[in-house]
Amino acid sequence: MTTQFGFSLAAADGAARTGVIRTPRGEIRTPAFMPVGTAGSVKAMLPGNVRATGADVVLGNTYHLMLRPGAERIAALGGLHRFMNWPRPILTDSGGYQVMSLAGLRRLTEEGVRFKSHLDGSSHMLTPEHSMEVQRLLGSDIVMAFDECTPYPATEAEARASMELSMRWAERSRAAFGDRPGHALFGIQQGGMHPELRAESAARLQDIGFDGYALGGLAVGEGQEMMLRMLDVSVDMLPAQKPRYLMGVGKPGDIVGAVRRGVDMMDCVLPTRSGRTGQAFTARGPVNLRNARHRDDPRPLEEGCDCPACTGYSRAFLHHVLRSGEAVSMILLSWHNLSYYQRLMSGLRDAISRGTLEDFAAAFEAGQQQGDIAAP
Amino acid sequence: MTTQFGFSLAAADGAARTGVIRTPRGEIRTPAFMPVGTAGSVKAMLPGNVRATGADVVLGNTYHLMLRPGAERIAALGGLHRFMNWPRPILTDSGGYQVMSLAGLRRLTEEGVRFKSHLDGSSHMLTPEHSMEVQRLLGSDIVMAFDECTPYPATEAEARASMELSMRWAERSRAAFGDRPGHALFGIQQGGMHPELRAESAARLQDIGFDGYALGGLAVGEGQEMMLRMLDVSVDMLPAQKPRYLMGVGKPGDIVGAVRRGVDMMDCVLPTRSGRTGQAFTARGPVNLRNARHRDDPRPLEEGCDCPACTGYSRAFLHHVLRSGEAVSMILLSWHNLSYYQRLMSGLRDAISRGTLEDFAAAFEAGQQQGDIAAP
Repeated sequence: MTTQFGFSLAAADGAARTGVIRTPRGEIRTPAFMPVGTAGSVKAMLPGNVRATGADVVLGNTYHLMLRPGAERIAALGGLHRFMNWPRPILTDSGGYQVMSLAGLRRLTEEGVRFKSHLDGSSHMLTPEHSMEVQRLLGSDIVMAFDECTPYPATEAEARASMELSMRWAERSRAAFGDRPGHALFGIQQGGMHPELRAESAARLQDIGFDGYALGGLAVGEGQEMMLRMLDVSVDMLPAQKPRYLMGVGKPGDIVGAVRRGVDMMDCVLPTRSGRTGQAFTARGPVNLRNARHRDDPRPLEEGCDCPACTGYSRAFLHHVLRSGEAVSMILLSWHNLSYYQRLMSGLRDAISRGTLEDFAAAFEAGQQQGDIAAP
Repeated sequence: MTTQFGFSLAAADGAARTGVIRTPRGEIRTPAFMPVGTAGSVKAMLPGNVRATGADVVLGNTYHLMLRPGAERIAALGGLHRFMNWPRPILTDSGGYQVMSLAGLRRLTEEGVRFKSHLDGSSHMLTPEHSMEVQRLLGSDIVMAFDECTPYPATEAEARASMELSMRWAERSRAAFGDRPGHALFGIQQGGMHPELRAESAARLQDIGFDGYALGGLAVGEGQEMMLRMLDVSVDMLPAQKPRYLMGVGKPGDIVGAVRRGVDMMDCVLPTRSGRTGQAFTARGPVNLRNARHRDDPRPLEEGCDCPACTGYSRAFLHHVLRSGEAVSMILLSWHNLSYYQRLMSGLRDAISRGTLEDFAAAFEAGQQQGDIAAP
């Protein structure tokens, strides 16, 4: 019995909605935050613990995995789920974003992007067709179309040319993906900060037809205010009955803002990357545990959090292991941050179900403004 | 109800013995291997997972902890057990070994050792009295006398002078430790590679009287063969009814050799340090997972091992995350190596109980000689 890919909405509160994405590998409760497992591992975390924080799905990076260990190798070893010991849904990006970031090491043509590996300088080509093939070899449940993430800032002409290229690539991605029951292909809206280009992009994507629609080219340096303004006009351009995915977002405040505007899925390296450098997210805003004020603080990082960093240790210990470069600091703070993010998502889903999202958002904002409580 | 410190032997097989050390914080099954938690953390491991591998006790380093975060700070935070979230027995070294390793940064006198911190160059003094005070502040269950680890090689005159200094320090350590019910103080035999000096040291330590006796100044570069020859003559010099602790040992073969000669306790950074660099210990000898031969190998690291590295992943994955510098490689291989070491200890205890230690040792040796099985 194969479950097909599907999405059903359970409740809405204003523009926000909550529901479930169904895949043969399990359900994804939306709004969903997807931890990033770049190179086959959510950094410093074991998959069982990622799951225990409440994650239903993780993201894998096509660019990193195709270069090392290689998509064919992962396929021969039984696919990415088995390779990384994560039996639940995996979304893979197309590799487009990463190769475009390789300034000076890549050349863009109509065909695709030729680039040099950041590992050994070897030359590779990524096209819509090859990206589909790599994501198929990985065994991804949710495949992303190959696109160009329009740089910011961009003139309207640049944004148009970039969007039109991405739409031609979206068509080629769709054709190359073919018919793969139980697997989904998402298209990606581009258009920079130009609403009329975003509308055109959304229309062209829907003409092609995808299982879900992503908002691309946001969170690229435009700032939270402009990003939310773009969401105000862009989210509604995407079909309501399909999942809407905001790529690469974000800080807790970005997430609340995006969910309020009708976004269903997000991903970001922030919780794990910040965890490794000592920044913890809490209901009272970020806490930098490297700061000397935590040196003698016997209190837990966040009262009421059930992660091992908060149930087992004082802030003084977390400060000490960070300063000492102990690997356990990466483990504990990545775990805490992923727990915080999933608690936030769970709170958002709950509030939408109850029709209390505005109250939830106000309480969230008040907590963030209040800030961390100093040691007594 | 406070359990006092005690040691009882349950069975012997030749010179080897198995038993239990009782402390108010729990029992230590002997022969015991103690993972090292240098700076308040067994590197890349959470304490619950260290415990799950079978460890009854961990070692903490006085030198590292007194410099960072400081013994007074740890005491104010409720002691080392609470600080590092390890409620079971902790043995602390005296700091002597580490400060003597600070070549050029320390000056030895009758009083003690003046040294400069490797962290900030600040000047500190460690004496028998101060080492006892630091270990008391940490809340250590098993405290080590302050000694000089005789360098190797040393002339007989050097070894004698060093041993005699250590014996005077042992007396001062004993006096400074005082009477602390539920806590134990261990003396440390020195004497270099000179049996008559070791005999003299053992006699002086017993005159002073300790709760356990360590073999110091071994595993310092003399090689396994000479170390085992020294154990052949030295272990029996220490009282049979007290725990005997071989410090800083060792490789799996060293451990089997030491246990066969009547050693009850050992500690070493090897399983965690090797784990971080990609060397795994198995019943078929060490396996270097960075080696390209594992690149496509779908098999687990060690068949039958119940650690997460072996139950969840292929060798190909472990190779990949090591090569990619992913933190999960440290976690998984440290976990495997600690599991392997504790499995070895459990096998040794079992064999001694059954009187089959020679068979166990022969099977161990055969496995190590056989070596890893190549991928099919």
